[in-house]
Amino acid sequence: MKRKNIPSVTINRLSIYHRCLEKILETEKAEEFKIISSFGIAEITGINSAQIRKDLAYFGEFGKRGLGYPLVNLNRELKKILGLDKKWSVIIAGAGNLGKALVKYKGFQKRGFVIKGIFDNNPLKIGKKLDHIFIYDIKEIEKIIRAENINIGILVVPADSAQEVADKMVAGGIKAILNFAPVHIVLPPEIKVHNVDLSIEFEGLTYYLLS
Amino acid sequence: MKRKNIPSVTINRLSIYHRCLEKILETEKAEEFKIISSFGIAEITGINSAQIRKDLAYFGEFGKRGLGYPLVNLNRELKKILGLDKKWSVIIAGAGNLGKALVKYKGFQKRGFVIKGIFDNNPLKIGKKLDHIFIYDIKEIEKIIRAENINIGILVVPADSAQEVADKMVAGGIKAILNFAPVHIVLPPEIKVHNVDLSIEFEGLTYYLLS
Repeated sequence: MKRKNIPSVTINRLSIYHRCLEKILETEKAEEFKIISSFGIAEITGINSAQIRKDLAYFGEFGKRGLGYPLVNLNRELKKILGLDKKWSVIIAGAGNLGKALVKYKGFQKRGFVIKGIFDNNPLKIGKKLDHIFIYDIKEIEKIIRAENINIGILVVPADSAQEVADKMVAGGIKAILNFAPVHIVLPPEIKVHNVDLSIEFEGLTYYLLS
Repeated sequence: MKRKNIPSVTINRLSIYHRCLEKILETEKAEEFKIISSFGIAEITGINSAQIRKDLAYFGEFGKRGLGYPLVNLNRELKKILGLDKKWSVIIAGAGNLGKALVKYKGFQKRGFVIKGIFDNNPLKIGKKLDHIFIYDIKEIEKIIRAENINIGILVVPADSAQEVADKMVAGGIKAILNFAPVHIVLPPEIKVHNVDLSIEFEGLTYYLLS
């Protein structure tokens, strides 16, 4: 099956399986030959085991029927399928507090997301550096995306300029946008946009505060 | 069934169902009598419809068998179950870039998470205000949590002081911590900790960048 014909809910679940395996590998000692069954993944993720087997089967045979999946190998394959075994070039539009925090965030680099530049319209910021990353004039964003072959744009500009900056990113050739701006942006259907809502992070917590 | 006996994977899924319904209500016009079936929720969330019915059944009867759930009402009930219909008092430990960005983040207030104070150990920051929120000396964190009856602590301090500050939060009486520090913190089992990993936000995107 062609990659683009795989349902997007399957891709979302693959990402959940991958995180589940990563978590096991982080907490337990990573034994090369450890086996995990679809029931084991189901127990942790809450996703039905038949669904898990079906999702993985889109991409081939990862284990022996009835025996389960070799954990380390499955994790490696999931990384490959999801594109997490590669380095990706990223730019950040917006050198405000969140932009600055994201530049300094060590988790991105560790996972292969390399920040190649920051963009802002504030003359006091343009030309300076943030954690060794150059701050460019936002007017240059289209040109630099094209020249540097940037894959992903992070949008951390104020809500009222988000659409305009996103349009410029797309004009430069960006195919995926991570949008932290609290506004809905409209882009061509082939551009993948992920809207980040930080308040979602609270959701699992409040249930447990009720007694 | 008692709230504490509900499996935590069920709570995670309730949060997913709630977001799914919120999204429908945001994009489509919210009609008071619109009905959604477990199959409809399954299609959007990728979670098995039998699982959805089972999860919801823990908390009572929300719909008529074979007819589905009244969307607006189910969403209201999920909010109540998850504790998202209440106001929660929140403090932020760490007045760095991310701390500042979170203070200014409008999404929290909108969803009922009210930031009551920021804490830092930098004398240049202590006593100042950020977006009308007072920056206190980190030494006072335990006292103020107790006095103000704070529910949730957000940890945005450097990795090497995360454990110490988390311990102080717990000593003050905090029951839930949202940890942005890139480090694993160890707390008593009754304290709910949610570790935020911003690089996860990229995961759904990179798949689509591979052709």
